[in-house]
Amino acid sequence: MYYPEPISKLIDSFMKLPGIGPKTAVRLAFFVLNMKEDIVLDFAKALVNAKRNLTYCSSCGHITDKDPCYICEDDKRDRSIICVVQDPKDVIAMEKMKEYNGLYHVLHGAISPMEGIGPEDIKIAELLRRLQDETVQEVILATNPNIEGEATAMYISRLLKPTGVKITRIAHGLPVGGDLEYADEVTLSKALEGRREL
Amino acid sequence: MYYPEPISKLIDSFMKLPGIGPKTAVRLAFFVLNMKEDIVLDFAKALVNAKRNLTYCSSCGHITDKDPCYICEDDKRDRSIICVVQDPKDVIAMEKMKEYNGLYHVLHGAISPMEGIGPEDIKIAELLRRLQDETVQEVILATNPNIEGEATAMYISRLLKPTGVKITRIAHGLPVGGDLEYADEVTLSKALEGRREL
Ligand SMILES: [Zn+2]
Ligand SMILES: [Zn+2]
Repeated sequence: MYYPEPISKLIDSFMKLPGIGPKTAVRLAFFVLNMKEDIVLDFAKALVNAKRNLTYCSSCGHITDKDPCYICEDDKRDRSIICVVQDPKDVIAMEKMKEYNGLYHVLHGAISPMEGIGPEDIKIAELLRRLQDETVQEVILATNPNIEGEATAMYISRLLKPTGVKITRIAHGLPVGGDLEYADEVTLSKALEGRREL
Repeated sequence: MYYPEPISKLIDSFMKLPGIGPKTAVRLAFFVLNMKEDIVLDFAKALVNAKRNLTYCSSCGHITDKDPCYICEDDKRDRSIICVVQDPKDVIAMEKMKEYNGLYHVLHGAISPMEGIGPEDIKIAELLRRLQDETVQEVILATNPNIEGEATAMYISRLLKPTGVKITRIAHGLPVGGDLEYADEVTLSKALEGRREL
């Protein structure tokens, strides 16, 4: 009980976040004490709202505050093409590029035998269902350019072959071993441009 | 507007914290989405409580949820000795050592002509007032062992000389240029033991 309880509780909360150890948590907690009260209240509200008001789009799996998400709902989007990504953050990366106008499908992971993640653990069945219902002509596999991402792309590619839908893989303009989320817009744009049929 | 509003607001809040850039803020915000709701609510509550329920002790300047703080209020403390530190975190560091049983005085800074911080900008007048009111026999100057901390210790030492109170400086067991807050307990203990009269 070296810290007054309100601050030790705040330190504990900060320590639950990834990459924040005891010393950083103490530093952040004391910083909060010196922030303006309305800024701190906004922070608290943002935490609660993010947790309570966000969900995953029942169609594409992207993170959203209304279902379906603004992308799935957008009439100006090309509904004949679906870009398959691992993570909602990858959708954001694609959107920032401002060149892609189709729909998305978020797998929420990648196949990884090492980590015991199989095809049934990610949203592949949901993708198949969408292909039955919707008039999709192309599926772009934009999983990460690393082992798990490649394996996932290969798996989906084989699975979808019988449907006759065109299947493309985002080009290796992306640095191999990298993370799609951190690719710059030019690289992403090049990778998309150079996509090839699988 | 790439992120749904609830998450972009949370990202903005995280970015107001020191050392947290856009990428870390995004990572933390998405991590929060996957935390259990009660953990997130506790975090939000901890932020509000820390900001609203913490204040500085009107006597020693330490951070506290009741005034006076638990140290100033403790009858078992030796009231004849005051340890002067720069920051509430230094009080915590001293308390963790478990060897000091006197009172504290938190300056909330150090004299730094470079940063335009003069004696009147830190709680030196408040220290003088305490010396008039209380039966203090020794003042330990435990400001940081760096330029600002030394300058502050020298300034206070000269100021207090006429009062006849014994004035000591914490020994250079502390690594010079270091930060008292990060000293390990043994070093701190050695530094306290070897204190000398100024
Ligand atoms: Zn959607
Ligand atoms: Zn106090």
